[in-house]
Amino acid sequence: MRPVRVGLLGLGTVGCGTVDVLRRNREEIIRRAGRAIEPVAAAVRDPARPRSCPVDGLRLTTRPEEVVADPAVDIVVELIGGLEPARSLVLAAIERGRHVVTANKALIAHHGNEIFAAAHERGVMVAFEAAVAGGIPVIKAVREGLAGNCLRQVAGIINGTCNYILTAMREEGAEFEAVLAEAQRLGYAEADPSFDIDGIDAAHKLTILGSLAFGIPLQYERVHVEGIRGVSRADVAFAAELGYRIKHLGIARRTGRGVELRVHPTLVPARELIASVDGVMNAVLVEGDAVGTTLFYGAGAGADPTASAVVADLVDVTRALTADPGNRVPHLAFQPDALADLAVVPMAEVESRYYLRMQVEDRPGVLAEIARILGEEGISIEAVLQKEPAAGAADVPLIMLTHRVREGQVERALTRMRGLACMRAGICRIRLESFE
Amino acid sequence: MRPVRVGLLGLGTVGCGTVDVLRRNREEIIRRAGRAIEPVAAAVRDPARPRSCPVDGLRLTTRPEEVVADPAVDIVVELIGGLEPARSLVLAAIERGRHVVTANKALIAHHGNEIFAAAHERGVMVAFEAAVAGGIPVIKAVREGLAGNCLRQVAGIINGTCNYILTAMREEGAEFEAVLAEAQRLGYAEADPSFDIDGIDAAHKLTILGSLAFGIPLQYERVHVEGIRGVSRADVAFAAELGYRIKHLGIARRTGRGVELRVHPTLVPARELIASVDGVMNAVLVEGDAVGTTLFYGAGAGADPTASAVVADLVDVTRALTADPGNRVPHLAFQPDALADLAVVPMAEVESRYYLRMQVEDRPGVLAEIARILGEEGISIEAVLQKEPAAGAADVPLIMLTHRVREGQVERALTRMRGLACMRAGICRIRLESFE
Repeated sequence: MRPVRVGLLGLGTVGCGTVDVLRRNREEIIRRAGRAIEPVAAAVRDPARPRSCPVDGLRLTTRPEEVVADPAVDIVVELIGGLEPARSLVLAAIERGRHVVTANKALIAHHGNEIFAAAHERGVMVAFEAAVAGGIPVIKAVREGLAGNCLRQVAGIINGTCNYILTAMREEGAEFEAVLAEAQRLGYAEADPSFDIDGIDAAHKLTILGSLAFGIPLQYERVHVEGIRGVSRADVAFAAELGYRIKHLGIARRTGRGVELRVHPTLVPARELIASVDGVMNAVLVEGDAVGTTLFYGAGAGADPTASAVVADLVDVTRALTADPGNRVPHLAFQPDALADLAVVPMAEVESRYYLRMQVEDRPGVLAEIARILGEEGISIEAVLQKEPAAGAADVPLIMLTHRVREGQVERALTRMRGLACMRAGICRIRLESFE
Repeated sequence: MRPVRVGLLGLGTVGCGTVDVLRRNREEIIRRAGRAIEPVAAAVRDPARPRSCPVDGLRLTTRPEEVVADPAVDIVVELIGGLEPARSLVLAAIERGRHVVTANKALIAHHGNEIFAAAHERGVMVAFEAAVAGGIPVIKAVREGLAGNCLRQVAGIINGTCNYILTAMREEGAEFEAVLAEAQRLGYAEADPSFDIDGIDAAHKLTILGSLAFGIPLQYERVHVEGIRGVSRADVAFAAELGYRIKHLGIARRTGRGVELRVHPTLVPARELIASVDGVMNAVLVEGDAVGTTLFYGAGAGADPTASAVVADLVDVTRALTADPGNRVPHLAFQPDALADLAVVPMAEVESRYYLRMQVEDRPGVLAEIARILGEEGISIEAVLQKEPAAGAADVPLIMLTHRVREGQVERALTRMRGLACMRAGICRIRLESFE
């Protein structure tokens, strides 16, 4: 089947990320979507500007209308941001029967009602997973995965710049201005940061989440918006002393009096999961009457994470264009004839770090005997914890953490160690993994 | 449009939860799916047994084949669990052209390949979101939301019983056997708990996640499985001392040598988000080349959370049966003609708790003046933090946390407090919310 052809409006950070992901994961995407998805054209402001992605095979133009009108383009991906000309271009694409994928939260929050009506009328698809919380598929979760619930609330850390600043204020005990300057230097905040730190970006996303949760029209102008300029180092410290962390949250909540739509700094109990979401990461908590409280965590911005959401939308549209409705998504994610028979690694070949707990005789030389065996099996030790013997006891617990090693090596070492005269009981071995 | 009619195989905890959710959220589901979803028949072992849900309007039978053969049934929901007769009934339903929704992880892990082939052949849908991590829509996330990624690994806390036991061992410093007995008393562990605590249930779920992530056939027999019987109180304590927590994880990881599929107790750095997932809660971490690390958190079992996933699948199937492929899911989750214009609550009417920070004169009577104003405005104080004055300073910071109150009351109180002679600077007010 011929590839689905994509025209991009904008080839900046996210545009280049999208081209990169589409090319890098081309085979994986064919296995999932049943056909290739190919970027074929892109509208840019300056064709001569160096890009972070290869542009070979892409028709570059300075006129976005050309991409929209290009009969070779099946799906238009709008990544120029802002309200105009994004709105006019998206409406023109719809008018010409193109499907549209966009990452533009401002556009959806302000003009979504108009855009969706036009798409409905013209019978084309408009997808916008990347508009909220970057790579986290939270629009899909709320719209489909939790569709059986009466939702009570959505509360999200949905602006990475604010979360980065508040996290750094806590960890470094620094004032807002100092951290903002640092964030700007690191590229986590714009030169003009007001869109982020005054809460406008979060309010766009909350507008969308509120509509998805409660089935109300998009109404950005009704969201109460506060940013984080008023939060001082003292507040962050006092909150910590009282057992709280300050997070910039967007909250959409159903109450007996109506729907609350608000964006503001918020104290959250430090023990709650959402309070542990730090740095530039995003998280959205969704509470439903059946499911209870769920939380969706991930990167909310950046070239690749945002591209992850854009490409997921492209796969969604492609699947809808390609498959019969009932088999839109393959049962096991990949097309049945594209299943791979990757080898399953035997456990002895698996690499991990290890926690080893032994009960050993309390005499000089014991640690050396054990360390020698580990060394001979090529296992290096990262940490040792040896406790005082209990009163009157002749043996002590000895705990070791190893560096990364193959399980087979550990098993050989354990067999030898079990034979040592100093061993007073079985050896407990638990694997150790880190995911960040 | 006529309702989509559902026949249930099994009317135990999850079956009754499904009937409850379908009836309780009937209107919300119509708004989302475009038509009603109605339970019409259920196969049970003992029709006389009391149920936790109303059975009026449900045709009860002791013969599941009757539900499968019932021409009035569009979708068969299989909730009897185990391999047989579940497998034969699901295959019979497919043969007769019924769509199938199942929560049966053992069935999918062992016979999914056969079932999906039959469904493909016959052109019917088979959905199984409830089979992994209960209410968390992680199958949808992996299969669709992250479809642009080359996935590197999936790692999940996917058995609530194990997580409950390991959490309680840490929090109470108790031994495995004592906590297991307590879990059985509370209904978090079965009378015969081996399916959970020996890792079999988690291995079923990991089998499914591994296939979805890497596009490999379901191969339960190749999963390395260890349970938590070997984890002692001492290990939990030593791990904590070294900065780790012990979690029972299912890990599917792509490596240069193939795919690792393993289920076992694992030390995880205490600062990582997945280490904070406690009690019966589940969480699945998914790492992709574009999105980076994401995490999906929620209830992994129980009547209502599992029903949330079953009903989401029913909505999915209904949307596919009802809409044209391009408009399967409404843009804003609800059908365009079903949008509600719920009132947005004015900020003065919003209820919250509040953090107030003041800089006040350091003399007797100041706290009383402030407390009097708060009291008169109906605001009760939950905590007060008053610090020593800095050396040579004539004023001190005073921090208060209020109970839940309307924002308008706080604003009135703040206006009055700002007029007090003892106030030395502006008052900082930050809202406080709890989500658990």
